[in-house]
Amino acid sequence: MLTTRLTHVFGIEHPVVLAPMDLVSGARLATAVTTAGGLGLIGGGYGDGEWLKREFAAAAGTRVGCGFITWSLARNPELLDIALEHRPAAVMLSFGDPAPFAGRVRAAAVPLLCQVHTLDQARQALDAGADVVVAQGGEAGGHGVGTRSTFTLIPDVADLIAARSPDTLLMGAGGVADGRGLAGALALGADGVLVGTRFWATEEAVVSARAHARAVAADGDETIRTSVYDIVRSYDWPVEYNGRVLRNRFIDRWHGREADLATHLAEAAAAFKHAVSQQDYDIANMIVGEGVGLIQEILPAGEVVRRMAQDAAARLGEWAPRTAAVSA
Amino acid sequence: MLTTRLTHVFGIEHPVVLAPMDLVSGARLATAVTTAGGLGLIGGGYGDGEWLKREFAAAAGTRVGCGFITWSLARNPELLDIALEHRPAAVMLSFGDPAPFAGRVRAAAVPLLCQVHTLDQARQALDAGADVVVAQGGEAGGHGVGTRSTFTLIPDVADLIAARSPDTLLMGAGGVADGRGLAGALALGADGVLVGTRFWATEEAVVSARAHARAVAADGDETIRTSVYDIVRSYDWPVEYNGRVLRNRFIDRWHGREADLATHLAEAAAAFKHAVSQQDYDIANMIVGEGVGLIQEILPAGEVVRRMAQDAAARLGEWAPRTAAVSA
Ligand SMILES: Cc1cc2nc3c(=O)[nH]c(=O)nc-3n(C[C@H](O)[C@H](O)[C@H](O)COP(=O)(O)O)c2cc1C
Ligand SMILES: Cc1cc2nc3c(=O)[nH]c(=O)nc-3n(C[C@H](O)[C@H](O)[C@H](O)COP(=O)(O)O)c2cc1C
Repeated sequence: MLTTRLTHVFGIEHPVVLAPMDLVSGARLATAVTTAGGLGLIGGGYGDGEWLKREFAAAAGTRVGCGFITWSLARNPELLDIALEHRPAAVMLSFGDPAPFAGRVRAAAVPLLCQVHTLDQARQALDAGADVVVAQGGEAGGHGVGTRSTFTLIPDVADLIAARSPDTLLMGAGGVADGRGLAGALALGADGVLVGTRFWATEEAVVSARAHARAVAADGDETIRTSVYDIVRSYDWPVEYNGRVLRNRFIDRWHGREADLATHLAEAAAAFKHAVSQQDYDIANMIVGEGVGLIQEILPAGEVVRRMAQDAAARLGEWAPRTAAVSA
Repeated sequence: MLTTRLTHVFGIEHPVVLAPMDLVSGARLATAVTTAGGLGLIGGGYGDGEWLKREFAAAAGTRVGCGFITWSLARNPELLDIALEHRPAAVMLSFGDPAPFAGRVRAAAVPLLCQVHTLDQARQALDAGADVVVAQGGEAGGHGVGTRSTFTLIPDVADLIAARSPDTLLMGAGGVADGRGLAGALALGADGVLVGTRFWATEEAVVSARAHARAVAADGDETIRTSVYDIVRSYDWPVEYNGRVLRNRFIDRWHGREADLATHLAEAAAAFKHAVSQQDYDIANMIVGEGVGLIQEILPAGEVVRRMAQDAAARLGEWAPRTAAVSA
């Protein structure tokens, strides 16, 4: 047991929440995390109503929440109704102003998690009435703003919350891949963590074996924040966002040559699509964060939750005898 | 007391080391940190033999070390002799391959600290025989590579050290500004921390009152990594390095327009020089990291050391009762 305000409020055993990774976090992964004592969030992602219904149905009987990409949800606002009909354990809104949707989530008495990347966005989340602010640093896998880091954003947002809304909870995200990351985030002032990359590398994640093998072999220096894959997929992310992925031949070719890529788009997009179908990760994207270097094996998700909590508890618990009162 | 391998090996009370900030970390600041139970490093910086002699003389009687910018030291290698003559508590080499200088430091039986920004550089530091690897994330104030973050680089380097050279010590750097940062770094696997920005904001730092006032008012979103000030100062940093500073009007004008800046260099350099002499920080540079948002007041450096250690000890010590064994 590692008890925090988050475990109390959500009635969970470990302060570990699965990131709602678009398509990767399906019912199988989300229920595995919840069953192990954490909390699973299904990835609503760019928005596919049928997928969402299917995954919620598959998770029936196990408490899970879900997450949305806010700017994309704005184009399909009915997806939020689908989610709320399933009485989710939480709804997380990422990547955009949560205000337009916050009221419906709160009216349904569902806890609202807002993912933020800057102090400025944290203020916006508090204005929207977030129950939990998820402070994500640029080391994270997937999208974000990338100008702040987990290490400083957690205490910065903790101070903001203490001053403006002390009952709001705080989760750290970005780079948490083992017990050290969980212990570090708690020591920095978080009430829990949101974990993507480490759960991406589990048996229940919707990820190919070939991608998994490549991630296990990668070290932490091999990821990069880029817009190359958003351009090639014609995703219209707001300009302040980019995403962290594993470097590969495609990135080495196009990163820093985005204007050029735009003029060769049809050709590059065709190559990308073909590579995805072939699981050719020299070209296809692998969305992982800096924490990928800490991953040595693909494990069941429940094992990840337990090891993370167990190791963090051992690390934090062992300090007491080494911290005799410091003379003032 | 907060005891770690670093406090044992260096015979210090708190695992807190002053970063050798070029010109900012003079004898007064370094001795204040050592006197409070940490370890002060004088900033050898870009290299000025007279300054170095004067500061070592002023620190006489108090144990201090010093640090060098390695690529710059290569142009003035005799500076290392000056430092070693003073029997420093440690020599830190940053920003470049330490190998050409490591032998002389080790032959003098002086502990060698090597600052690294990537896992790849950490391997190089171990090859050179570093006694302490300082893992610096991109949230740090001042120069670095900026592609890795403190939160993931600490455990990544800890694993490398455990596998290759378990007696080597590890310090975390970048974003440590209070007890939470120290506790976080220790929880992530470091033996101690190297602190720049928080000591920059102390009474003993060689920093103007106007810069201090501006830093206290700044929040953590307001810094940026850039090469603008290296261009305008005609410093020839290796291409992979840039530095984190506070954003201001000058940055807003030139960051992202570096080629343009190069063609207007004489004019911009004159404006910069004038601004420095006038303490006009709309144009002059303020070298601080993301941790600047956590700084609410200018304090004596000794007070910073004590509060940081005291708060970290309290934070880490309090976990024991909340960490009952996690069932496996
Ligand atoms: C494969 C992948 C897909 C992601 N997709 C989403 C998403 O659809 N919505 C979202 O809010 N966050 C998404 N994220 C970001 C996570 O919410 C979270 O911030 C991040 O994974 C935390 O950093 P970590 O990967 O280092 O654990 C994704 C992350 C990954 C790795
Ligand atoms: C004003 C300032 C000057 C610095 N100058 C140097 C330097 O001359 N040599 C060096 O090795 N590091 C230098 N650094 C970087 C520090 O060694 C250290 O990595 C950094 O300050 C840690 O991050 P923090 O500022 O968030 O504490 C400097 C940092 C600052 C803030």
